[in-house]
Amino acid sequence: MTPLNGDAGGSPDREERILGIIEKTRSKPGKFKDTQITMSHGAGGKATQSLIEGLLLPAFLNEGLAQLGDAGAFQANGTGLAMTSDSFVVSPLRFPGGSIGELAVNGTVNDLAVSGAKPLALTLGLILEEGLDTAILRQEVEAIAAAAEAAGVQIIGGDTKVVERGLADSMYMCTAGVGLRDPRAELSTTSLQPGDHVLVSGSIGEHGTTIMLARGEFELEASIESDTCSLWPVADALLEEVGPGIRCMRDATRGGVASAVNELARASKVAMTIREKDVPVEPAVAGASDILGIDPMYVANEGKLVAFVAPEVADRAVEVMRSLPGCERAADIGDVKGSPAGMVLMETPFGSSRTMDLLVGDPLPRIC
Amino acid sequence: MTPLNGDAGGSPDREERILGIIEKTRSKPGKFKDTQITMSHGAGGKATQSLIEGLLLPAFLNEGLAQLGDAGAFQANGTGLAMTSDSFVVSPLRFPGGSIGELAVNGTVNDLAVSGAKPLALTLGLILEEGLDTAILRQEVEAIAAAAEAAGVQIIGGDTKVVERGLADSMYMCTAGVGLRDPRAELSTTSLQPGDHVLVSGSIGEHGTTIMLARGEFELEASIESDTCSLWPVADALLEEVGPGIRCMRDATRGGVASAVNELARASKVAMTIREKDVPVEPAVAGASDILGIDPMYVANEGKLVAFVAPEVADRAVEVMRSLPGCERAADIGDVKGSPAGMVLMETPFGSSRTMDLLVGDPLPRIC
Repeated sequence: MTPLNGDAGGSPDREERILGIIEKTRSKPGKFKDTQITMSHGAGGKATQSLIEGLLLPAFLNEGLAQLGDAGAFQANGTGLAMTSDSFVVSPLRFPGGSIGELAVNGTVNDLAVSGAKPLALTLGLILEEGLDTAILRQEVEAIAAAAEAAGVQIIGGDTKVVERGLADSMYMCTAGVGLRDPRAELSTTSLQPGDHVLVSGSIGEHGTTIMLARGEFELEASIESDTCSLWPVADALLEEVGPGIRCMRDATRGGVASAVNELARASKVAMTIREKDVPVEPAVAGASDILGIDPMYVANEGKLVAFVAPEVADRAVEVMRSLPGCERAADIGDVKGSPAGMVLMETPFGSSRTMDLLVGDPLPRIC
Repeated sequence: MTPLNGDAGGSPDREERILGIIEKTRSKPGKFKDTQITMSHGAGGKATQSLIEGLLLPAFLNEGLAQLGDAGAFQANGTGLAMTSDSFVVSPLRFPGGSIGELAVNGTVNDLAVSGAKPLALTLGLILEEGLDTAILRQEVEAIAAAAEAAGVQIIGGDTKVVERGLADSMYMCTAGVGLRDPRAELSTTSLQPGDHVLVSGSIGEHGTTIMLARGEFELEASIESDTCSLWPVADALLEEVGPGIRCMRDATRGGVASAVNELARASKVAMTIREKDVPVEPAVAGASDILGIDPMYVANEGKLVAFVAPEVADRAVEVMRSLPGCERAADIGDVKGSPAGMVLMETPFGSSRTMDLLVGDPLPRIC
């Protein structure tokens, strides 16, 4: 990440330099012309991207943000830090394998972990609906505390707001986190090179599928659980064993693995080929996706990362991941190619291939 | 603040030590027995306190949090940092003198500033209601960018979620901020001593009164504007001129100056006397409060701090503040006494006095 001091400043030189970074990291900066917010603006796909690139990024112009990693970079007294924040509006609040509180901790921890930063401290904002049963709140507070302990972070501050009955769906959460940027790797969204390998840390699509089934709208039952967990152990192991060979990591949340690879293909101006047969998907997820007509590549994960690594460390990286609990199905799923820049192709088991673009619309609203 | 490293850890020793801190900082830890969340849990008064002390604090047990300042303390590579977060649900979104976006930046900047930390970086979480007019969003994004520039901080990351129509009130915001702890002062909520002076940085009650009038419920008009602004310039000036004499600072948001002084009286186990005649209140605020039957001491400010200082620096501190724009009416409003611990008395201009307790209920919902 580009080192950045914490000072403000808006000299024309600096703005030009930052605009240059934005230009370099984006092949085609999005425009934001929508007149109304739709559910798809929150889905992590094309509409989210146009909102970020067309409205938010130009307004908040700075180097840490321009890199558009999962966390922003800044410095304090010469110490390199990363900071990130997430809001959580998942419905239902509890689901097999987790709850909104666990997601809130792990989601923020994971944004730091995949940015190559050791999570240190979290804050917690609660927006509560008037009339909420405090037993539900207590349950989530306990889930947050347990997840924070498991992830090795402290909740060092927070804030609580209450809105009138009907103006929230029980509770929303906002977490922010700060981490110490790790010297074992220099990760960047723009550093992918032809020949690099694309790895995933385990089987995909479990979180999103779990939420969909937990809502009971599909009258479909399957024994699937959310994969919500801290990704710091796997990020830490990769940094330790193959640090210099890691180009970039992403946690594959909203929009799934498909969005993560698409964003990186665009940021690094490279192409990618993903081999469908090598992508690990649990049979229950594959079955549910099939019936629902959804590609698991677009389904959210809350405990899986995608790593882009130099070819010479790819096998070792997979081996390292597979040795960790929960990552037994880690796999090498694809390659980085030179062109066409920004395009991701999915090779089917039958030898054909299809374009795998960013998600359009929002097939799975409020999954985190 | 207690130095604290970022490592997790839950040794019995450590827990005992932390429980000791909590015990020391609280004369009577609150219990949380309510079965439903009410608007008063978000109002910053007694109900908020019981929620924090009875449920959140015991669950998230750690030293940075136990100090219960406006920001939590932690260290990264030996650098002392502070971190805070806030959620904003103000209604209406725009009001004379400001908007939700400005509040979101200044509220977080101010929590850092009064904790004696120079604000460095902010993150922004947006929870948007489906159907929101994007012109309103654009306006707030611009307000955030302008407020961040004015406050000298960078927005280095963020997150956007969308909920279905009706499940939010246009938009909610969550900001988090990190600041560099300033070596010019050692602030602590437990350090107030009998003889210390209580100062405010200007006239009070303007933000809350503005919001109330902007809602149009009272058919009352007055030329009052929100005081929302960054408090770092005034905090910085105080740290520079009288740093070692400052015991603690607070920004007097929800619950107003009354809540700030009550919290500090409890944390430091001291009494306080506030002289009503010395508290600066604009005539329009005094008039509106009078008609509405609300004491301006309980009304929220978004650009005023309360400073607790050693007697020998009190006059100089007031002088320093008065030299700054917006702080012309800074004043010495009261004294710290030895007992009864935790009690705040208001001396009326007629020589009598009354107890000024924490706010009960929520006379002014969603003012920030």
